[in-house]
Amino acid sequence: MNSSLPSIDRLVEAFQRLPGIGPKSAQRLTYHLIKMKREESAELASAALGIKDNLTTCEICFNISEKSQCSICSDNERNSQIICVVEEPLNVLAIERSKIFKGLYHVLYGVISPVDAIGPDNLKISELTQRIKNNEIKEIIIATNPTLRGEATASYIRDMVLELDKSVEISRLARGLPSGSDIEYVDDSTLVHALNSRSSLK
Amino acid sequence: MNSSLPSIDRLVEAFQRLPGIGPKSAQRLTYHLIKMKREESAELASAALGIKDNLTTCEICFNISEKSQCSICSDNERNSQIICVVEEPLNVLAIERSKIFKGLYHVLYGVISPVDAIGPDNLKISELTQRIKNNEIKEIIIATNPTLRGEATASYIRDMVLELDKSVEISRLARGLPSGSDIEYVDDSTLVHALNSRSSLK
Repeated sequence: MNSSLPSIDRLVEAFQRLPGIGPKSAQRLTYHLIKMKREESAELASAALGIKDNLTTCEICFNISEKSQCSICSDNERNSQIICVVEEPLNVLAIERSKIFKGLYHVLYGVISPVDAIGPDNLKISELTQRIKNNEIKEIIIATNPTLRGEATASYIRDMVLELDKSVEISRLARGLPSGSDIEYVDDSTLVHALNSRSSLK
Repeated sequence: MNSSLPSIDRLVEAFQRLPGIGPKSAQRLTYHLIKMKREESAELASAALGIKDNLTTCEICFNISEKSQCSICSDNERNSQIICVVEEPLNVLAIERSKIFKGLYHVLYGVISPVDAIGPDNLKISELTQRIKNNEIKEIIIATNPTLRGEATASYIRDMVLELDKSVEISRLARGLPSGSDIEYVDDSTLVHALNSRSSLK
């Protein structure tokens, strides 16, 4: 894969450190950048450089923000009594795209994973406990991913909320068939959930 | 897709201009960069910025180079009587990876494509003619892609070389079944070529 040109190899290596970009894609991106206009490649470089300088995390929900409180937490129109708990900032964006949720968020920054030595203390869980204690919260929607670790983290948070002994509803996103899917190709676990959570048509 | 944060949207847009990166990948890359260490994202930015400053094209074969003549053209060990003609600099890298070709290259920078208003004059074809005229060349291997436009460009170059009336061999990369492929899934055109160019086992 070595091009024998240091400046090319350097950019190929930098691209390869990004998720989902293998050696061949990294090479293709690099050669595309060489062909680009100087202003365009400079814009990518400057945007990549600026991304760290202009961003912080919201002091309430830990979503990525340009101010100490993010635009969602500081929006008075949103229902502050419902908190949707997600693993990563990207998940906030995905749920916001659906335009159906009007409450607030809480970003955990990961899931409990003993193998990777990530325990509850490494996530923003105690901060969530504080939010529930100090505010009038009616419902916690746990929206961690439907994976083993996501489920384990959801259980942990449920137990933690129950222990607080406040009358807070706890819910979890429904599991079932994804829209547009074909039952033939859906995995067993999804089918089990889809059957168990079937809804009456009457 | 809008994150409502200008610095995020700016990097997402810059990533989306790269080939093979759609809106969702661009978003994933951006959020990954936010999580990266500052040195790592700075390294990507600086490598992207440096790529234009340190590179030029070889004055002989037009491959990308850090000097006026690329490392292949200035290598005395290579056979300067054979020229392999390719569409793009990335193709040079692919053929060099195979380690089987020991001649020189000539990069066209595209293919003839009337629809896109790209004619022979927009490619490095007259430069190829000059190389053949001024040097002792024994063989031209045309290694444009096996597409309609690649074939048309190959024909054009073949005619151009024949017109020069020098005793130059002209060849084209063989077409047939790719290694590891399954005949059941190979397209018709490939099968036609594989059958027509079948080789005797005796």
